[in-house]
Amino acid sequence: MPAGNPFPEEPSDTQTAIMKATFDALVAYGYAGLTIDRIGEFFPKSKSLLYHHYEGKDDLLLDFLERLIESREAEFSPREDVDARTRLERLLEGIAASEMSDADRGFSRALVELRAQAAHDEDYREHFTRSDQFFREWIADIVRDGIEDGVFREVDPEQVAATIHVLAGGILTERVTSDDPQVEAVRAELDAYVQARLLAE
Amino acid sequence: MPAGNPFPEEPSDTQTAIMKATFDALVAYGYAGLTIDRIGEFFPKSKSLLYHHYEGKDDLLLDFLERLIESREAEFSPREDVDARTRLERLLEGIAASEMSDADRGFSRALVELRAQAAHDEDYREHFTRSDQFFREWIADIVRDGIEDGVFREVDPEQVAATIHVLAGGILTERVTSDDPQVEAVRAELDAYVQARLLAE
Repeated sequence: MPAGNPFPEEPSDTQTAIMKATFDALVAYGYAGLTIDRIGEFFPKSKSLLYHHYEGKDDLLLDFLERLIESREAEFSPREDVDARTRLERLLEGIAASEMSDADRGFSRALVELRAQAAHDEDYREHFTRSDQFFREWIADIVRDGIEDGVFREVDPEQVAATIHVLAGGILTERVTSDDPQVEAVRAELDAYVQARLLAE
Repeated sequence: MPAGNPFPEEPSDTQTAIMKATFDALVAYGYAGLTIDRIGEFFPKSKSLLYHHYEGKDDLLLDFLERLIESREAEFSPREDVDARTRLERLLEGIAASEMSDADRGFSRALVELRAQAAHDEDYREHFTRSDQFFREWIADIVRDGIEDGVFREVDPEQVAATIHVLAGGILTERVTSDDPQVEAVRAELDAYVQARLLAE
């Protein structure tokens, strides 16, 4: 669940410009403080276009999340030229990076708030269900490749993926909702886990 | 971060009655739908008492969370008569139980929403920072005892605790924000982790 901005600085079409404006507004105001008007502050064209396209803030945000997955899908297509061990390493680095840019932090805050909407909103829950499934499958793929290549043990790829995925969500949340997140400790333990449980002797 | 109701069915004093009413209202309405009036629905005395004691919903909820930790502290004091392996087992069972009562699910939903408030609200963040520290210390204690007794390896207790704690938060969130939470898979992998990383040969 990487937090980086997948939208280009200079969007070439209206839809992408709306998505970029939504991302910027989420970073600036979070979910709670977000309004279509505030998204308009980051949108170079007329605000009326936003009201024309969407019924309200949640309608827009669900479309935004949808496009976010699509862009991740394109980004995370299996890269046959990179070995499983390196892909796992990059994944863990992404999940538990020691530093975080202001934009990443701002967007992570918004992601945690958006996810919390799913506790009571079926549309958000549907989105996060699919999003989780995608990211789990992506992690399971790495584990499967590593087993095939003989660098990982014969573990259950789905089981390992489910665990790393849940951990990633936990770190993201702790990071933006605690003043004392233990990201480095978790990262070190993740390395120990990979060593003790995943890496073939 | 267990989700069970720590308040007695028949509270003997006003403060405890307020806490129980808040718990029941959170289960019924979640954070987003909560109002002091709705807490009043579960409060046997006059609603004006609620308005007298608290400035608003968040003021009341922060007090509620504070008392929740206090009751957990009392509950989780080290039990010298139970060995570390059993305490770890109970902990993992609590974190990743396969079944969840309706009340636990309702309260877990509210907890995820309350935690998300901490992304933008310093008072909530302060609470969850302390709450996290308490639960981590509690887990680290189990690990420390297990090492002392020779049933666990010489791992870093804080590091293991930080990881199990983050995982617990991730499971709680996935459980109430996805229609396809992988709790059983994570539980099985947790057992494998304990085997591969914690248990002494």
